[in-house]
Amino acid sequence: MDIEKILAVAKRRGFFYPGAEIHKTIAGFWHYGPIGTTLKKKIENEWRNFFIKEEEFYEIEGTNIMPESVFIASGHIKGFTDPLVQCKNCKSLHRADKLIEEKAGIFVPERTSTKKIDEIIKKKKIKCPDCDGELTNTRFFNMMFKLGVGPTEQAETAYLRPETCQTIFVDFLNVYRAMRAKLPFGIAQIGRSFRNEISPRQTLLRQREFSQAEAEIFFNSDKIDEFPRFEEVKNYKLNLLTLDDKKLKKVTVADAVKKGLIKGKLIAYYLARIQQFINSLGIPLEAIRLREQTDEERPFYAKYAFDCDVKTSLGWIEVVANHYRTDYDLSSHMKASGKDLSVVENGKKIIPHVWEISQGIDRTLFCVMFHCFIEDKKRGWNWFKFPPKIIPFDCAVYPLVLKDNLPKKAKEVYEMLRKKFDVFYDESGSIGKRYARADEIGISFCVTTDYDSLKEEDCTIRDRDTTKQIRIKIQDLTKILKQLMDKEIEFEKAGKPI
Amino acid sequence: MDIEKILAVAKRRGFFYPGAEIHKTIAGFWHYGPIGTTLKKKIENEWRNFFIKEEEFYEIEGTNIMPESVFIASGHIKGFTDPLVQCKNCKSLHRADKLIEEKAGIFVPERTSTKKIDEIIKKKKIKCPDCDGELTNTRFFNMMFKLGVGPTEQAETAYLRPETCQTIFVDFLNVYRAMRAKLPFGIAQIGRSFRNEISPRQTLLRQREFSQAEAEIFFNSDKIDEFPRFEEVKNYKLNLLTLDDKKLKKVTVADAVKKGLIKGKLIAYYLARIQQFINSLGIPLEAIRLREQTDEERPFYAKYAFDCDVKTSLGWIEVVANHYRTDYDLSSHMKASGKDLSVVENGKKIIPHVWEISQGIDRTLFCVMFHCFIEDKKRGWNWFKFPPKIIPFDCAVYPLVLKDNLPKKAKEVYEMLRKKFDVFYDESGSIGKRYARADEIGISFCVTTDYDSLKEEDCTIRDRDTTKQIRIKIQDLTKILKQLMDKEIEFEKAGKPI
Repeated sequence: MDIEKILAVAKRRGFFYPGAEIHKTIAGFWHYGPIGTTLKKKIENEWRNFFIKEEEFYEIEGTNIMPESVFIASGHIKGFTDPLVQCKNCKSLHRADKLIEEKAGIFVPERTSTKKIDEIIKKKKIKCPDCDGELTNTRFFNMMFKLGVGPTEQAETAYLRPETCQTIFVDFLNVYRAMRAKLPFGIAQIGRSFRNEISPRQTLLRQREFSQAEAEIFFNSDKIDEFPRFEEVKNYKLNLLTLDDKKLKKVTVADAVKKGLIKGKLIAYYLARIQQFINSLGIPLEAIRLREQTDEERPFYAKYAFDCDVKTSLGWIEVVANHYRTDYDLSSHMKASGKDLSVVENGKKIIPHVWEISQGIDRTLFCVMFHCFIEDKKRGWNWFKFPPKIIPFDCAVYPLVLKDNLPKKAKEVYEMLRKKFDVFYDESGSIGKRYARADEIGISFCVTTDYDSLKEEDCTIRDRDTTKQIRIKIQDLTKILKQLMDKEIEFEKAGKPI
Repeated sequence: MDIEKILAVAKRRGFFYPGAEIHKTIAGFWHYGPIGTTLKKKIENEWRNFFIKEEEFYEIEGTNIMPESVFIASGHIKGFTDPLVQCKNCKSLHRADKLIEEKAGIFVPERTSTKKIDEIIKKKKIKCPDCDGELTNTRFFNMMFKLGVGPTEQAETAYLRPETCQTIFVDFLNVYRAMRAKLPFGIAQIGRSFRNEISPRQTLLRQREFSQAEAEIFFNSDKIDEFPRFEEVKNYKLNLLTLDDKKLKKVTVADAVKKGLIKGKLIAYYLARIQQFINSLGIPLEAIRLREQTDEERPFYAKYAFDCDVKTSLGWIEVVANHYRTDYDLSSHMKASGKDLSVVENGKKIIPHVWEISQGIDRTLFCVMFHCFIEDKKRGWNWFKFPPKIIPFDCAVYPLVLKDNLPKKAKEVYEMLRKKFDVFYDESGSIGKRYARADEIGISFCVTTDYDSLKEEDCTIRDRDTTKQIRIKIQDLTKILKQLMDKEIEFEKAGKPI
């Protein structure tokens, strides 16, 4: 599949495009147009329904700017860095780890020292990829955006958060008290994060500003296997790739726990939920895997970690990071702040452990577009097979031609439908062109008023997936569209086939 | 009304609290807890329904960080400043205009020169409010947060956007083309803005990071009086305070236009919609006014401007700024970028004019909390009378006591209701305490299972506003709660009074 084809549609039809592109732009910032915004909001709302509502997590909303003290406590000031080298000749900057991987095929783990990196560069004779010049020694570059808050003379140092979860940890005590929460409980947030990437690339996949949906599930580490909802997923099959058994295989949640492939029922439950969620967005099961991270890849705070990856023509893309963060965060913030962040359970003080679900919303949207994209030579245009719950518009309404009161009738239908659905109205161009444009943004059903509509008070519905059409009475339209969207009736049985 | 009482509830019950307050914080950043997040999201969704959906605006979502070129074009680099003075003795910093207003009662308009400000300070003998020391000369301080994007050696200058609308102007061409838009049309965005305020204050009212809902309505300036939907609001009465007639008065939209109090039907229509929206959130009409800005207050880009203010015990608070920005923005971005941002209408190229609706979401939430707060000596606790559509939870479910299967029955009811509503479940404390806690976050209806529930398959509903209770069958509960929320039936007639 050619990604460029998707990007062309994305730009032309208002899914997404480079930020502020009429001006001199900076790489790594993308804006969503009207169609992309709706798609993104619907994916976020599905996440909200699937996790926050269904799992009864508490949702919070914090600021993007936070004081330096937060990131001293979290370890980001010290450790949130990328290794950077510069060409002595052409002055271009490069991420040392990526350069070594590309040039010498050696994986450089996150915590490798600059000394070790310099040795590899020397040994493998790695030069500047742009001009073949000699490279400087490696230095660590902190990826957080730094800000001065207040007038210059007395500015206080602050940062844009590099991950939304730090808000959750610093607000933990407020939420725990206000909600009278009992373990296990989750706190979630959907919001922006910011990383000063040295080389942003692949459009939405590596941006400098991006959206995350994160949940931190706080639990008593002694009770990781006491999780009643485990029963609901125990027979669900995971696409699992663990370190113990390096082959991707389908295994039930119950077996994965029994065989020790996943360490704890709580963890297994949430991994299953993640795979179910990604699948529910129109990404087929065979393109999803849960891959255990190696010791070398795993961030320093994680005892245990799984990536949920989606397969695309760019390779496997990590869309959700799942981390067992232990009590690292609460203990660190507790130590730095001097505030007691422990929880009382059965009269005993404990510092909860954390299982984290960290989903990249933009990456998810990208993978959804990739897997829903249908290259269709027969139709002569390409289209998106979005599942109903995330389609930017539920349906479109058109008059067949722009005369003889057909637009008036179409407007009446439009006004009726838009009370219940997200509806798109369009009059311009031939009806064939309008159907093609609807397909291109994934609209499932197009409703058209024609000459018969004026006499019979009916209209046609066209099905995106088959291009077939039926006629139905306008008075039944709302009900039948709802049933079609919920897949309660078959399209061809819903009205009179044309 | 004592604001402190509301703030105490806000903190204790998880509406909002200072950001990262376990650490050393910086003033001007507030986080929303679970209850506040839900309230805020519901206000944003109402705005989305009321404007984006009902007015058929295009919604977009851009990044918070934008390149310097955007803000050179918009005029923010040059003009988005506050006048700053420093005490020569204690080094404290102050906003010169606010200081003059407080100390000498003189209003300092936005475009006053530093020379003029220095003259006033000298003439009125204004000293440091902290130590009575002498003040430095005034200098302008740019209120945008500046960032370096990319590694230090080659960082490109960027800023956090001080208003969401600049995203709309720089994306105008993308949206216009992708949506095949026709004038008049609106582009809207709900998102964050950032201002490096010298003195943040009054909690949510003057923050350094805040949420805006903005719509820019693009129109042909020759057709400002051709606006069909004007008919829908022409008899609606505005609370209007114009420069021509400096008394607040009630006047119909039609009369306001006829008398020239509002210049244009399009403008009058959107002012009416704003007043209707604020009113729909539970803020009484008598506490809302539309006030025309004076020449001195008005930002340099605005030909004409109205604030929509809400009255509180802190005075009138501006919650929505409504600006006639003319073609200032599109022309400026066009000139700076060299891109043609004109629109073709009937074969003629025109640069659209802009009417702007710029609503502060946090301020709106604050004013909603203020006007819905009921100090209730009789009950012994204070509570929020939120209107149904923005209540954090639609209803609560409780077992009367924690024994004899009452919790099991309550859980069944909870699971049934949460498929349709936002439901709160609580078992802890006496039933009286739980009712009080529900009132405190504004929940309209509390459903309780008691001993009769086990025999009769029924339950009680308690009404927040009257504390009265009725009994109804559990099987009718979903239907009746829906009718009560939609005010389709009277509470006391909905079941058997207790």
